[in-house]
Amino acid sequence: MIETPYLLFLGDAPDQLAAKVAQGIKDWRPENAVGQYRMDGCKADLGLADMDLAAAKAAGAKTLVIGVANRGGVISPEWKKVLVMALEEGFDLASGLHNLLRDEPDLVAVAEATGRTLHDVRIPSVQYPIANGKKRAGKRVLAVGTDCSVGKMYTALCMDAEMRKRGMKSSFRATGQTGILITGEGVPLDAVIADFMAGSVEWLTPDNDDDHWDHIEGQGSLFHVSYSGVTMALIHGGQPDALILAHEPTRTHMRGLPEYDLPSLTALRDMALPLARVANPDCQVVGISVNTQHMDEDAARAYLAEVEAEMGLPATDPFRFGAGKLVDALAA
Amino acid sequence: MIETPYLLFLGDAPDQLAAKVAQGIKDWRPENAVGQYRMDGCKADLGLADMDLAAAKAAGAKTLVIGVANRGGVISPEWKKVLVMALEEGFDLASGLHNLLRDEPDLVAVAEATGRTLHDVRIPSVQYPIANGKKRAGKRVLAVGTDCSVGKMYTALCMDAEMRKRGMKSSFRATGQTGILITGEGVPLDAVIADFMAGSVEWLTPDNDDDHWDHIEGQGSLFHVSYSGVTMALIHGGQPDALILAHEPTRTHMRGLPEYDLPSLTALRDMALPLARVANPDCQVVGISVNTQHMDEDAARAYLAEVEAEMGLPATDPFRFGAGKLVDALAA
Repeated sequence: MIETPYLLFLGDAPDQLAAKVAQGIKDWRPENAVGQYRMDGCKADLGLADMDLAAAKAAGAKTLVIGVANRGGVISPEWKKVLVMALEEGFDLASGLHNLLRDEPDLVAVAEATGRTLHDVRIPSVQYPIANGKKRAGKRVLAVGTDCSVGKMYTALCMDAEMRKRGMKSSFRATGQTGILITGEGVPLDAVIADFMAGSVEWLTPDNDDDHWDHIEGQGSLFHVSYSGVTMALIHGGQPDALILAHEPTRTHMRGLPEYDLPSLTALRDMALPLARVANPDCQVVGISVNTQHMDEDAARAYLAEVEAEMGLPATDPFRFGAGKLVDALAA
Repeated sequence: MIETPYLLFLGDAPDQLAAKVAQGIKDWRPENAVGQYRMDGCKADLGLADMDLAAAKAAGAKTLVIGVANRGGVISPEWKKVLVMALEEGFDLASGLHNLLRDEPDLVAVAEATGRTLHDVRIPSVQYPIANGKKRAGKRVLAVGTDCSVGKMYTALCMDAEMRKRGMKSSFRATGQTGILITGEGVPLDAVIADFMAGSVEWLTPDNDDDHWDHIEGQGSLFHVSYSGVTMALIHGGQPDALILAHEPTRTHMRGLPEYDLPSLTALRDMALPLARVANPDCQVVGISVNTQHMDEDAARAYLAEVEAEMGLPATDPFRFGAGKLVDALAA
């Protein structure tokens, strides 16, 4: 649906985490990432070639993807100048921001004049049903986090890649803009109307072969008061057979909520599992995914060993050390 | 905003519960309910005078309120005939259905031609913020249910009325179409975009006097897989100081989900309280509200005594026996 390859627009990202959309595309579909476009003051760097529009065009890029998320999601006047130029130079635009491309009259006018397309992947394109809670065939796994942005999507992508490598039946099911931009399909869950959230997750993960695994992209956290309702809908709409606990050990407070401490992995397990068993009484917590990007390798391995001993479950950083342990646990 | 009094449209309601919107208006603002309009096959009856449009007009009714909810919420062709006639006879229309009045071209055309107004109370009219989780002044109480439609709104309305009677500072905070039609304001929570659910509840229940109580209208149930995400957003956005457990003892399965049993009150308490304490560590479960409408008085009183003994908390049917016990518990 979205023409590839992409030029990844990082704008004036205040930090590396703000560019996680672009980072995800680069990590999981590197063949689609021709280069990065950074503005003055940009604090993110994907390690891709910095390109202006002309250079990216010459390198074959078809779509400028806004690869940066900011709280509130507003398209600033500074960004606008680049976006208008990109349309004029023949790029389509793709975005997962709350502030829609289609709601900006100047972008709409230029896109019409130049014959280019505006893709707002955050907007649902489907009339989702209300969830019916009926048991579906096939297996599903969901990562639930101690906080937002702790690596739930990467965990799902890593497990999916590992299963495919082993010849198992497996699908990554995107529920956010990065996942949708990576796979080209999915449910933009945080933009779905409240009553249809769980139904949209049922729609996303339909009946399948008994030995097929859906890796459902997690969102938010049961402990993050801004987004916990979205997490709840994933747990009940996804009716997972297995939960993975996801954690980032260096986080000092809940993301965006300085007054809130992170819960322990034990507290997360004890909160999430009874909720999951409402929809699927056989659900189990099978493993732990730790995002160790801010730890050196020795510290990471020591921490993982400690977590395994404390929780009695396999623990790994699937992005750094591979998802084998988690897939072994799912297969068992 | 909506002109009163109302003619309450019950359509072809399949059962009494389907007319709960109209029932709520009749119970809490009887002075606004001039009569009821029932079509062939209607299985609901509010005990109001049956009126046709001319009779209701003569009795002073200004607005035809669609007082019936149906799963899916579609405006049928049979309903449409009555609605068009009502506009032509000078009524405004008000509705809380998912199927909006404003999305029906014929209704829009007739309303424009006749100068009448279409009120879709389900549609948010405010750009809600993302929840920030900051502690707010004032007190808040939320009813959480073992199922949907077990009496959470009535519990809140009863406690609010009792507090006002005692001269306490108190507000009912509507989160659904019935509540909004009763009070004329509120948040249509099930129509809010997922990311903004908790923020809309924060917006609805702002800082207030230290001795003021917000009675937040509950929605859904943590144990109802279709709507649990909405319940979660109320618990975290509302940051209640007190929870009331709400239950309907004759329900044989979760509403609309024949495969799902109701949880026990103990299970509800153990699920809801730790979640509520994420947002408000001082939250307490203070009482139990039992909807005894399908029990005779002796059975109801015996059941309440049993629940009090088992749970160690005051239990009452606030609509049948008064909310005094619950307000006593809140005041303590």
